[in-house]
Amino acid sequence: MEIFVYRKGAEAVEEGFSAKDLPGLLADKTNVIWVDLRGETAEQAERAKDVLLNVFGFHHLTVEDCMETRNQPKIEAFPNYFYFVVHGIRPEETNSTNFVTKELDGYLGENFVVTFHIERFKSIKVVKQQIRSSTFVCQRGAAYLLHQILDQIVDMYMPIVDDFDNVINVLEGRVFQMKKSNNAILGEIMDLRRSVARLRRISARQLDVLYRISHGEFPQISENVLPFFRDVHDHLLRISDLAENYRDLVGSLFDIHFSVVANRTNDVMKTLAVLSSIILPLSLIAGIYGMNFDNMPELKTRYGYYSTLLVMVLVTIGLLLYFWQRGWIFQRDDEKGIVSKEEIHAETADPDL
Amino acid sequence: MEIFVYRKGAEAVEEGFSAKDLPGLLADKTNVIWVDLRGETAEQAERAKDVLLNVFGFHHLTVEDCMETRNQPKIEAFPNYFYFVVHGIRPEETNSTNFVTKELDGYLGENFVVTFHIERFKSIKVVKQQIRSSTFVCQRGAAYLLHQILDQIVDMYMPIVDDFDNVINVLEGRVFQMKKSNNAILGEIMDLRRSVARLRRISARQLDVLYRISHGEFPQISENVLPFFRDVHDHLLRISDLAENYRDLVGSLFDIHFSVVANRTNDVMKTLAVLSSIILPLSLIAGIYGMNFDNMPELKTRYGYYSTLLVMVLVTIGLLLYFWQRGWIFQRDDEKGIVSKEEIHAETADPDL
Amino acid sequence: MEIFVYRKGAEAVEEGFSAKDLPGLLADKTNVIWVDLRGETAEQAERAKDVLLNVFGFHHLTVEDCMETRNQPKIEAFPNYFYFVVHGIRPEETNSTNFVTKELDGYLGENFVVTFHIERFKSIKVVKQQIRSSTFVCQRGAAYLLHQILDQIVDMYMPIVDDFDNVINVLEGRVFQMKKSNNAILGEIMDLRRSVARLRRISARQLDVLYRISHGEFPQISENVLPFFRDVHDHLLRISDLAENYRDLVGSLFDIHFSVVANRTNDVMKTLAVLSSIILPLSLIAGIYGMNFDNMPELKTRYGYYSTLLVMVLVTIGLLLYFWQRGWIFQRDDEKGIVSKEEIHAETADPDL
Amino acid sequence: MEIFVYRKGAEAVEEGFSAKDLPGLLADKTNVIWVDLRGETAEQAERAKDVLLNVFGFHHLTVEDCMETRNQPKIEAFPNYFYFVVHGIRPEETNSTNFVTKELDGYLGENFVVTFHIERFKSIKVVKQQIRSSTFVCQRGAAYLLHQILDQIVDMYMPIVDDFDNVINVLEGRVFQMKKSNNAILGEIMDLRRSVARLRRISARQLDVLYRISHGEFPQISENVLPFFRDVHDHLLRISDLAENYRDLVGSLFDIHFSVVANRTNDVMKTLAVLSSIILPLSLIAGIYGMNFDNMPELKTRYGYYSTLLVMVLVTIGLLLYFWQRGWIFQRDDEKGIVSKEEIHAETADPDL
Amino acid sequence: MEIFVYRKGAEAVEEGFSAKDLPGLLADKTNVIWVDLRGETAEQAERAKDVLLNVFGFHHLTVEDCMETRNQPKIEAFPNYFYFVVHGIRPEETNSTNFVTKELDGYLGENFVVTFHIERFKSIKVVKQQIRSSTFVCQRGAAYLLHQILDQIVDMYMPIVDDFDNVINVLEGRVFQMKKSNNAILGEIMDLRRSVARLRRISARQLDVLYRISHGEFPQISENVLPFFRDVHDHLLRISDLAENYRDLVGSLFDIHFSVVANRTNDVMKTLAVLSSIILPLSLIAGIYGMNFDNMPELKTRYGYYSTLLVMVLVTIGLLLYFWQRGWIFQRDDEKGIVSKEEIHAETADPDL
Repeated sequence: MEIFVYRKGAEAVEEGFSAKDLPGLLADKTNVIWVDLRGETAEQAERAKDVLLNVFGFHHLTVEDCMETRNQPKIEAFPNYFYFVVHGIRPEETNSTNFVTKELDGYLGENFVVTFHIERFKSIKVVKQQIRSSTFVCQRGAAYLLHQILDQIVDMYMPIVDDFDNVINVLEGRVFQMKKSNNAILGEIMDLRRSVARLRRISARQLDVLYRISHGEFPQISENVLPFFRDVHDHLLRISDLAENYRDLVGSLFDIHFSVVANRTNDVMKTLAVLSSIILPLSLIAGIYGMNFDNMPELKTRYGYYSTLLVMVLVTIGLLLYFWQRGWIFQRDDEKGIVSKEEIHAETADPDL
Repeated sequence: MEIFVYRKGAEAVEEGFSAKDLPGLLADKTNVIWVDLRGETAEQAERAKDVLLNVFGFHHLTVEDCMETRNQPKIEAFPNYFYFVVHGIRPEETNSTNFVTKELDGYLGENFVVTFHIERFKSIKVVKQQIRSSTFVCQRGAAYLLHQILDQIVDMYMPIVDDFDNVINVLEGRVFQMKKSNNAILGEIMDLRRSVARLRRISARQLDVLYRISHGEFPQISENVLPFFRDVHDHLLRISDLAENYRDLVGSLFDIHFSVVANRTNDVMKTLAVLSSIILPLSLIAGIYGMNFDNMPELKTRYGYYSTLLVMVLVTIGLLLYFWQRGWIFQRDDEKGIVSKEEIHAETADPDL
Repeated sequence: MEIFVYRKGAEAVEEGFSAKDLPGLLADKTNVIWVDLRGETAEQAERAKDVLLNVFGFHHLTVEDCMETRNQPKIEAFPNYFYFVVHGIRPEETNSTNFVTKELDGYLGENFVVTFHIERFKSIKVVKQQIRSSTFVCQRGAAYLLHQILDQIVDMYMPIVDDFDNVINVLEGRVFQMKKSNNAILGEIMDLRRSVARLRRISARQLDVLYRISHGEFPQISENVLPFFRDVHDHLLRISDLAENYRDLVGSLFDIHFSVVANRTNDVMKTLAVLSSIILPLSLIAGIYGMNFDNMPELKTRYGYYSTLLVMVLVTIGLLLYFWQRGWIFQRDDEKGIVSKEEIHAETADPDL
Repeated sequence: MEIFVYRKGAEAVEEGFSAKDLPGLLADKTNVIWVDLRGETAEQAERAKDVLLNVFGFHHLTVEDCMETRNQPKIEAFPNYFYFVVHGIRPEETNSTNFVTKELDGYLGENFVVTFHIERFKSIKVVKQQIRSSTFVCQRGAAYLLHQILDQIVDMYMPIVDDFDNVINVLEGRVFQMKKSNNAILGEIMDLRRSVARLRRISARQLDVLYRISHGEFPQISENVLPFFRDVHDHLLRISDLAENYRDLVGSLFDIHFSVVANRTNDVMKTLAVLSSIILPLSLIAGIYGMNFDNMPELKTRYGYYSTLLVMVLVTIGLLLYFWQRGWIFQRDDEKGIVSKEEIHAETADPDL
Repeated sequence: MEIFVYRKGAEAVEEGFSAKDLPGLLADKTNVIWVDLRGETAEQAERAKDVLLNVFGFHHLTVEDCMETRNQPKIEAFPNYFYFVVHGIRPEETNSTNFVTKELDGYLGENFVVTFHIERFKSIKVVKQQIRSSTFVCQRGAAYLLHQILDQIVDMYMPIVDDFDNVINVLEGRVFQMKKSNNAILGEIMDLRRSVARLRRISARQLDVLYRISHGEFPQISENVLPFFRDVHDHLLRISDLAENYRDLVGSLFDIHFSVVANRTNDVMKTLAVLSSIILPLSLIAGIYGMNFDNMPELKTRYGYYSTLLVMVLVTIGLLLYFWQRGWIFQRDDEKGIVSKEEIHAETADPDL
C-alpha cells in the first residue's frame, strides 16, 4: 500500500503514510490523496479489503469485485464516489495473436483516488514517477490524477493495436508465399481472430466507461477536467474503430488463404492434365505397335519406326499448341497495370454507384 | 410449496406455514416472505395456481405464463408487484453442444418473493440453505432475497459459458489433426453454433430483464438494493458479450475445416501429379522399345537396354529436381518466426490503418 | 358480413344484424360490436367498402389499403379509432420452405372492432365460436376482443416457426448422408432461406405494430387490457428472435453442404491417388521387361519372371505401408470423445476469452 | 416551365401563365400553385434558376443542388418552405441488374409546389393529367398535390423491386442448370448485387426523407394530409425491407454457384477415379503377360489367354461392386421426401431452439 | 503563418500581419480573421504552438492534439470556441488501393478561424485564392469561411470515392479474364478492402463531426450559416453510404475470384477425365493384344489388327457421344437471355417475397 498526499500549496507530494493516517488526511478536503493498493498475496489482499471497507467505507459489492479478477470494464456511481474497473494490457505477454489484459479497480472521491490491482501496472509506475518529480498533476486535483492513470493505461494499447495491422500484413504475405499447405498459418489466423474479438469486447466496454466519465455524469469530476477524459475517450474510440476494421481484415485472411490453396490446386491439376494429355496418347501409339498381330504391315516397313516417332513428336507439338492456346501453359503473369486509367474511366458511363 | 417467513428482528427464518397462513403473514408489511412453488405434478400445479390467483391475486395472464414452459425471459409490471420469467441452465444436461435451459417464474412485491418452477433449481436450493443458516439475506428485504436467487442463477451460466471457449479450442485442434474427412466434426460445429445461438438469444432477453430491474424502474426495489442487481446485470453482460464473440469464432471453425480439407486435397493432388509425371514418361519410353517394328536399330545394340535404363534414371532425377524447384516436394514447413519483428516494422511506412 | 353485438349485461351475443342497423348500435357506447367483413368476391368487397366508408366513416386511404393485398403489417392512428394490418399464416400452404401469409385489416374504436379479410382466417373462426359460447370475452370490451383475435393469429405462427428448427435439422442430416452430389438439397436450402427471410420481415414489422399497441399509445385500449397485448407482443418477440437464429443456421447449411462435398472429393482423390501410385510403378516394371532389346540378360534367367513378380508384390506392400503411415488409407474415424474433459481444461491457462 | 393554378372554388385548373405572373398568383394564399421546371437544356436550366432564386427567393444552396445531379435523397427545412431531393426510377433503362435512378428536386410552400427535374418523369406526367381532368387533388391543397407526386414516384419502384425476386429465382435456376462453368452468370450475380446495393442506399435515404415529412416535422403539411404521406412512407418501408432481404438472397447465389461447381467437379473426379481404378489394374495384368521373360509358364498353357481374360472380367465386376457399395456409381438421386413428417417430429425431443 | 483580416465594409482582405498584431485585431469583434498555421518544420510547429497557447489561449490539450498526427476526426466545444480535427485526402498518393489521409486541426471563434496543418492542403490554397479575389466569403463571417474550407476538403473525397466503383469494376473484369492463378489480384482485392475500411472509418467519424456542427450545437455558427454545413454533411453522408456499399462489393470480389478458380479447375478436371476415359481403354486393348500368350487365335487372323483398330475407333466414338450427352464436351456457352421476360413472370405465382 502506497499513500501519496499532496497538501494544498505544498512543494512536493508526501509519502510514507500508513492506513491509520488516512482518516485524518481524508478529512481535510483540500488534500489530494492517492492510495495505491496491491492484492498480489492473500495477506495484501486482506489488508486492502480492510482499508477499502473500513477506512473508506466503500460498498462491499465493489470490494468483492476488486478481489475477483474476471470483471468486465464497468463503472458504478455511489453518493460520494464512483467505482470503476478498467483493463490494461499485459505488455510482456500480449501480442497480436494472444491478447491478454489485467484488471485495475479504482475509486474516485472528491479528494482521493484509490487504485487496486493484483498485477503490476507499468502505467501506474509512470504516474507515480510523475507526481514524485512534480506537483503539477496533483495541483489539478484527484480527478486529474485519475485521468493521468487512465491515459497511461489507454496509451499502452496503442502500439499493440497498431501492431495488429502489421501482423495482418505479414500473415497475408506469408499466405501468399506459402509453398506447402500448412495448418500453422490457419491456426495463427484463428488466434488473431480470437485476439481481435477480445480487443473488440474489452475496448467496447471500456469505451462505455469513458463515455460516462467524460460526459459529466459524475460530480466528482469538475467541468474543467472533462476535456482530458474526453481526450482519453477519443483515443479509445480510435482503438475500438480499428478493432472493428481488423475483424473484417482477419476474416479476409481466411478467404485469401482459401483462394491461394485453390489456386495452387488448380496449378497442380493443370500440370497433371497437360502431362497426361501428352503422354497417354503417345503411350497408346506405342501400345498399338506393341501388339503381336501377325499381320501388321507397318511393322515390316523400313521407316515405320521412324515415322511413328515422327508422329509422336507431331502429336506432342500439336497438343502443346492446343494447351498454349487455351492458356494452360507458358502463360505470363496477369498483366497488372496494363489497364490504363483512361480505359477505366471510359468504361463507366454513370460513375454514380 | 415452501413458505419462509422472516419477522423483523427475529433470529431465524420460520418455516412450515401453509397457504391459509399467507394472508395474515402478508398483511404485516414488516415480514419478509418467500413462497416457493413447484409445478412438477399436475396436482402441485393446480395448488400453485390457486395460491397465485386467490391468495396473491396475481394477474391471471401471468399465472397462465407460469404454467406454460415456453416463455422467453421477460418482466411485466403491475401496480403492487412485478412478474418475471428468467431461464436457468440445466447443468446436468447442458454442455456446449447442447445448451438447454429451464424456466423460473416469479413475482416480487413489497414484502414477498414468489417463485414458481416445474424443474428443480440448484440455485434455489442454495439460497434456501443460506436463509436457513443466517438471517442476513432476509434482513435486507424481499428485493435483496430476489437478487440472491437471480445471482445464483446467473452464476450457474458462468462455467458453461467459459467452457465454450475450451470447446471451440478443442474442436479447432481436432479439425487440424483430422486424418480422414469426417462429417462428425461438422455436425459438432453445427451443434455448437446452435448452442451459441440459443445462448445469445436467452442471454440477450435476460439482459433486458435485468437492465430494467437494475435501473430503478420498479418501486419494489429500493435504491440501496439496486447496485446488487446491477452487479448481476454486469455478469450477464459479460455472458452476452462472450456469446457474441463465440458466434464469430464458431463461424471461423467452418472456414478452418474447409481450408484444412482443401489443404489435404492439394497434398493428395500433388502426390498424384508428381508420381504420374515421373512414371508416365518412363512408361512411354518402355512402351516405345516394346514396339514390334522390324527395323529398330537400338534394339540390336549391345548397351541399348542399359542406356535406356540410364535415360530413365536421368529423366527421373530431372523431374524430381524440377518439382523440388517448384516447391512441390521435399518442402519443409513454412518457416514461421523467420520474419523478424524488425522486418515487420520496417515494412509499414504508415502504421495507421 | 357478420355483425356481433354484445349489449351490456346481456347473457349472449346477438347476431343477424345488417349494415343499416349499425349506426344505431354504434351510438350506444355500452355495446361491444364486432363487424367481420369479407372481400372474397368483387361484390362483397364493394359492400365492405361501402360500410367502411359510409357507416363507419373511416379514412378512405385505409379503406383503399384494405382492398389491396400487398401491405406490410402497420398501424395508423386516427382521432376516434386506429387502423391496422397484420399478417396471418396460410396454414394449409405454408411450410418451412414456402412461407406464405395472408392479410387481415382491421379497425378498433371505443366500442367496436371491424375486421376485413379476403381469405378465410381460422383464427377468426375460433374467436367467433368463443364469443358465441360465452360472453366472457365481450364483457371485457372491444379492445379485449381484438386482443383475442391477434392472439389467435400469432399462435398460428408458433407450430410453423418451431417446425423450422426440425426442418433445418433434417436438411442437415440429409446433407451429411447424401451420396451423390445433388442440387435438389441446395434448392431446398435456398427455399428455406427465402422463407426465413420472409418470416423475419413479417415478424419484425408485426412486432412494431404490437409494440405500439401494447405500450399504451392508443386511447382505445384501456390500461387494464394492455398486459394482454404485451403478452401477444412477447410471443411475437420469441418468433422474431427465433427467425434471427434460423437465419444463421440456414447460412451454416451452405457451409456444411460445401464441406461435405469437399470431403467427398478429397476421398475420391485419395482413392485415385493411392491406386495410381501403386499400379503405375508396377506397370512400369512390366513395361520395362516388355521391351524388345536383344540384350536383356534378366529375360533369360530362370527365375527372372518370379523375381519380378516378387518385386512387384514388395513394391505394393511398401507403398501401402507408406500411404497407411500418411494416414491416407485404413484410417479409422476421428476418435471423437477421446480428448477427455480433464485435458480440455488443462489446456487452457486463461479461460477468459 | 409549366404553371398550374387552382383558384379556390374554381371548376378547373388554369394553365398558361408565365414567370412574371407568379408573384401575383403567389400573393393570394388561397391559390394552389404548381410550378414544374425542366432543366434539360442549359437555357432551360438558366431560366429555372432565375425563377427559383428571384421569383421564389429560395436559398441559393438549394438552387445549386437542383442544378447538380448527384445528390442523395434529402430534405432541408427553411422558414417558409422546405426543399427536398427524391429519386425516381428510369423505367426504360432500369432492370434488376442495372438499377438507375433520376433526381427530382422540389419545394413545398404554404400554397405552392415547385418541382425541378432534368429528365422526364412519367409520374409527373400522370399527376398533370389528374389535375387537368379533375380539381379534386388541388382542392386538398399544395401538400396533397406533393403527396400525389411522391406517391406516383414510389409506385414506379414497386414492379422493379418485385421483379428482383423473379430475377433471383431465374438466376438460381440457371445456376442449377448450367452445364459448363461460365463466368457470365457470376457477372450477372455481381451486377445484381450492385443493383441491390444501390436500391438499398437510395431507399434507405428516401425513407428518411419520408419519415420526416410524414411525422409532422414541417408546418407546410397540415395534420389531415399526414396520413397520405405516411402511406407513401409505408410503401417505401416495404421496398427497403425487401432490398434488405434481396441482399441476403443474392449473397446465397454465390454460395449456390460455388456448391454447384463443386458438385460437378466431384462428379467428374468420381468418373475419372472409377474408370482409372478399373482400367489400370487390367492394364497391369496385360502388361505382365506382355513381358518377354523366357520362362513364363502361363504363356505356354492352352487356356492361359482365356483365363487371363476371365480374371480381367472378374476384377472388373469386383471393382464395380466395390464402387457401387461405396455409393460412387449407379446412385439414384437423394430420396427427397422419404423422411416423413412423423419422423421429423419424433426426432426432436425439445423443439425449442 | 498567414493571417487574413477582413475589416467590416472593406473592399479587400488584408494580409501581411504578424503574431503580435493578432490581439489587437481579435479585439475588434467586427473583423473576420483567419490564421493559417503550418507545422512542417519543428520551428514552425514551435511558433504555431506559441500562437495557439499564448495569443489565442486555447486549451493546451487541443494544442497537443494539433502537434500529434494520429487523431481521429473529432470536435470539442470550449466556452468561446470549438476545436476540430478533420481529415483530408492526400490526392497525389491516394488511390483506391491505398487510401491515405492527412490531418487538419482548427478552431472556430466568434470572429476568427484558426487552421493548423503539417502537410499542404490544396483545399486551403483554393480558399485563400477565393478570399483574395473577392470579399464575398469573408462578408458572411468566420463560420462561413470555415464552411468553405470544409466544403473544399470534402469535395476532394468525391473523385476518389467515385473511383472505387471503377476499380471494383476493373478488378472484377480482370478476375474474369485471368488465365493463370495469380495471387497479385488477391493482394489487390485485399488492399482495396483495407482502403474501403479506412474510408469507412474516417468518413463515419467525420460525419459525426459535421452532424454536430450542422445541427446547431455550437453558438459560434449562426442559424443562417447552418444550411451550408448541412450541405457538407449531406455530401459526407453520400461518401459514407458509398463506402458501406463498396464494402459489400469488395467482399463479393473474393467470392467471384474463388468461383472463377473453381470453374477453371472444373474445366481442367473435365479435360483430364475425358482424355483419360478415352485413352486408357484403348491402351488396355492394345495391351491385351501385346500379351505374349502362345495361344491367342486373334493374333493369327488376317484382319485381326484392322478389326482391333476399328474397335478402338468405335470405342472412341461411343465415349465421345457419352461425354457429349453428359454435357462435358462440345458444350456451348450458357444461353443467357434465352429465358424470356415472359417466362420469368409466368414462373412466379406470388411475386411478394
